[in-house]
Amino acid sequence: MSDLPTSVYLNEEGPREGFQIEAATIPTARKIELVDRLAQTGLRHIQVASFVNPRAVPGMADADAVVQGFRPVPGVEFTALWLNQKGFQRALGYRDRLAINGSLNLYASDAFLMRNQNRVPGQQRAAQHELIAMYQAAGVRVKRGFISAAFGCNYEGDIPVARVVRQVGELLEIAAEHGESIDHMGLGDTMAWATPESIRRVVGAVREAHPDLTILLHLHDTRGLGIANAYAGLQMGVRMFDSAVAGLGGCPFAGHKGAAGNVCTEDLVFMCEEMGIATGVDLDALIDCARLAEDVVGHPLPGAVMRGGGLARFRTASRAAGGGR
Amino acid sequence: MSDLPTSVYLNEEGPREGFQIEAATIPTARKIELVDRLAQTGLRHIQVASFVNPRAVPGMADADAVVQGFRPVPGVEFTALWLNQKGFQRALGYRDRLAINGSLNLYASDAFLMRNQNRVPGQQRAAQHELIAMYQAAGVRVKRGFISAAFGCNYEGDIPVARVVRQVGELLEIAAEHGESIDHMGLGDTMAWATPESIRRVVGAVREAHPDLTILLHLHDTRGLGIANAYAGLQMGVRMFDSAVAGLGGCPFAGHKGAAGNVCTEDLVFMCEEMGIATGVDLDALIDCARLAEDVVGHPLPGAVMRGGGLARFRTASRAAGGGR
Repeated sequence: MSDLPTSVYLNEEGPREGFQIEAATIPTARKIELVDRLAQTGLRHIQVASFVNPRAVPGMADADAVVQGFRPVPGVEFTALWLNQKGFQRALGYRDRLAINGSLNLYASDAFLMRNQNRVPGQQRAAQHELIAMYQAAGVRVKRGFISAAFGCNYEGDIPVARVVRQVGELLEIAAEHGESIDHMGLGDTMAWATPESIRRVVGAVREAHPDLTILLHLHDTRGLGIANAYAGLQMGVRMFDSAVAGLGGCPFAGHKGAAGNVCTEDLVFMCEEMGIATGVDLDALIDCARLAEDVVGHPLPGAVMRGGGLARFRTASRAAGGGR
Repeated sequence: MSDLPTSVYLNEEGPREGFQIEAATIPTARKIELVDRLAQTGLRHIQVASFVNPRAVPGMADADAVVQGFRPVPGVEFTALWLNQKGFQRALGYRDRLAINGSLNLYASDAFLMRNQNRVPGQQRAAQHELIAMYQAAGVRVKRGFISAAFGCNYEGDIPVARVVRQVGELLEIAAEHGESIDHMGLGDTMAWATPESIRRVVGAVREAHPDLTILLHLHDTRGLGIANAYAGLQMGVRMFDSAVAGLGGCPFAGHKGAAGNVCTEDLVFMCEEMGIATGVDLDALIDCARLAEDVVGHPLPGAVMRGGGLARFRTASRAAGGGR
């Protein structure tokens, strides 16, 4: 009936996604506080910053200070994002603190590729070859592939499933030509077009073409379907997700103001754990982080479980009262 | 793989759910404005008020005025809620404007039943017989059955699936003893304990026991799983849902402050329509109603699609630009 995994791996992107769109007024120490607290929840991957031009993204002007400031925790992978060679070189300076993983990216929407990168598809493919060369020159292995706008695009409309499958194949081939292998392939619902059924269709088609490929879902919650889409992914056996504590963040490039952040980490953890899918995360500790995130950014964030709370306290109390006949 | 219906029927409960928990400061004319606008969206069922003690629920002090004030629309069923004989008699005074349907209710949690109704299960069953007698004396047919706390309870913890199935059977038998038949059986996630998997388990077990019974889901979104739970219901063939425009409302009796309202109507409509499931509802008109609802209550409401917007405008624009290659 379904193909639910027994465990999932979550890439926490809240600090990077969140601080990227917030005004540059959050004290660096508070960002570091959030990262350090997140590292104590059982999360195994935390993206802490983005090495981008601070004039374009003022909230990331203190990226170096954040990366220098957090406390490394054994077993937790801390990463950063970069968009070009300059950003990559900045990240390389922190190889002692950050896991530096190469990432490749194609776009399922030509129109979005043109707007976002000013490239046609052939140029984007060529750029991936150059990226690998840059990674290999630095001794960095490719880990992640990513297909942007895999479920629909504000500039191009619906995206044929076959195109996503083709681009996944192209990205795998590009990596293979250089002796690299992609550890996991992200499918990005960049502009929140996905529904649970399109998740099933696209993930199903990619799995059919590449049965051994680990698929990651990157889901935006702009239209309220993020968690439902994650569930559909779980049903298709997906066991890697990008997510953001408290629902921090949002895509500043998505072209409309309602853009919400990634699917909320603690809501996803709650759903998984309640369904018997191990996350390795302490929900109550994560809820505390979500409340801290709200305090740090100074405005309400979209997470639900941080307000509703988990169920453990009710189970404990009802058992004590002799419930559960 | 799934059993998605081709269409769904939505019971819009936003006005009743919403105004029930808001302070009594919303002008009656604005409540009527929202009801009248909702009636133009294609929704076929709108619950407009609750005939309860205004001292207990100040927001419902103007229930009569709201019921007297809205404009009836052919093909739209307007209903009200009552909790006792006095409320029922008030509703009966509006048979020309309201659809008066009998409703029966058992509780899957004894502890919640005791707190909410001060009854043990035998008393609650006896009360259903008395309810039917009251309905029949007024020439009102029983339409709805409802099992509260069917997926878990803050006071009793997890609820065995078999208990829900048994109570569904009991309610059907009680109705049958009086020559009544239940049109649809609501399963209430009163305190937001459900996950997509427990929805599948409970709905599956009820369907197995009563294959011809129409099941309705009443889902609260306190922990962010409302839409995912609705999707799981759709996968199990459920085609009736209670919902609330903009996510208005919340259960004032659920015993903790984070209680959120019903699943958001326009988010549910968006998901259904995008998956090819007909709702009969004009999404853009409903989004306008959701924004109106926010204006009427004077604070943000949890709906997502009213902020993110639908996808039709992007499809139109991208087709005009020659997209969708």
